[in-house]
Amino acid sequence: MAEREISQAVIGRLPRYFRYLGELKDREVERISSRELSDMMHVTASQIRQDLNHFGGFGQQGYGYNVEYLYREIGKILGLDKTHHLIIIGAGNLGQALANYMNFQRQGFIFTGIFDVNPALIGKKIRGIEVRPMEEVTGFIRQNNVDIAVLTIPKSEAVAVAERLTAVGIKAIWNFAHVDLDVPEGVQVENVHLSDSLMRLSYMIDRYESQKK
Amino acid sequence: MAEREISQAVIGRLPRYFRYLGELKDREVERISSRELSDMMHVTASQIRQDLNHFGGFGQQGYGYNVEYLYREIGKILGLDKTHHLIIIGAGNLGQALANYMNFQRQGFIFTGIFDVNPALIGKKIRGIEVRPMEEVTGFIRQNNVDIAVLTIPKSEAVAVAERLTAVGIKAIWNFAHVDLDVPEGVQVENVHLSDSLMRLSYMIDRYESQKK
Repeated sequence: MAEREISQAVIGRLPRYFRYLGELKDREVERISSRELSDMMHVTASQIRQDLNHFGGFGQQGYGYNVEYLYREIGKILGLDKTHHLIIIGAGNLGQALANYMNFQRQGFIFTGIFDVNPALIGKKIRGIEVRPMEEVTGFIRQNNVDIAVLTIPKSEAVAVAERLTAVGIKAIWNFAHVDLDVPEGVQVENVHLSDSLMRLSYMIDRYESQKK
Repeated sequence: MAEREISQAVIGRLPRYFRYLGELKDREVERISSRELSDMMHVTASQIRQDLNHFGGFGQQGYGYNVEYLYREIGKILGLDKTHHLIIIGAGNLGQALANYMNFQRQGFIFTGIFDVNPALIGKKIRGIEVRPMEEVTGFIRQNNVDIAVLTIPKSEAVAVAERLTAVGIKAIWNFAHVDLDVPEGVQVENVHLSDSLMRLSYMIDRYESQKK
């Protein structure tokens, strides 16, 4: 697998391929042509061929892609063949919503613990797992081989919490707090800045309205 | 304002500028140089000057940017000087989390209604607004001048719901359902595909681990 040669742009598109291939697999489709995939995904067939050719030998001329194989290989590139242990910091509505996404479990993300500072939430069970007090988080990470921390806490606390987590060796942070985190090298951060997303939508509405005039 | 000439890449970066400028404004900072902004945002000063020069005349050599003015002008470009009425479809944890983000309100997104099919949720109050049954949604959109529908429902229902909403003239969909929507031209869609985001994180962890070996 020539992983090093795959550009960031292609990597960025892989989760979407993975999603469509997963649906095809669930529908027990065995083979798919770039043309059919193109119709489903609203991407040109040539873009699809270009993207998937990076992995070499998946597609066969006039025969199409083997769905199961391609799904599995893209999964490997995305690291989904490995298990990741995930904890959630912040047991509010967003933390609970993420804990309940069963689909994450299916992709190897094991929901292992959830933490909060609010005494009213501590002890509450979310998908069978009790909310623990924040004081226990560092010990818990060490004992349970936790890879990923999901931050669903206010931005005022996120920076300090991220420092505590990285100090005990967390590998990655999935950050929903509305702030950019400074982390040591080697710690991966993926931000979900919901306000930024809503602003892009607002921009699109506005641009469309002014073009109509 | 030469809006048409601003590239998509710059537009994509504006929400982040807007966020940092908002924080400066809250701290009552009046002026900021591209150098200071560069240190805060971890973007090169020349990138910042290039991006902000698109708007013309904001920065003055050796004097810096007027924070308040730049914040307001970027806000205008993002359509944040206008009010948007927003409803949430799906009153589960994620829907409730989004309803409770007070920051959206501050940026002109007015939370106007929330809908669900689950009888157990109907009538429940979220930020003072009662959850209504889905049957009422189309009438509600017509009567309340609703611009944006936020979909926090399972993907199995999202496509059909999006069709109903666009049929009564919704302008934009903020889609959290794990499916791509087909909407009529002129309807804006911004997707938040959380699984895709988590997969990118998984990829980054995996790549880093294999580089270490």
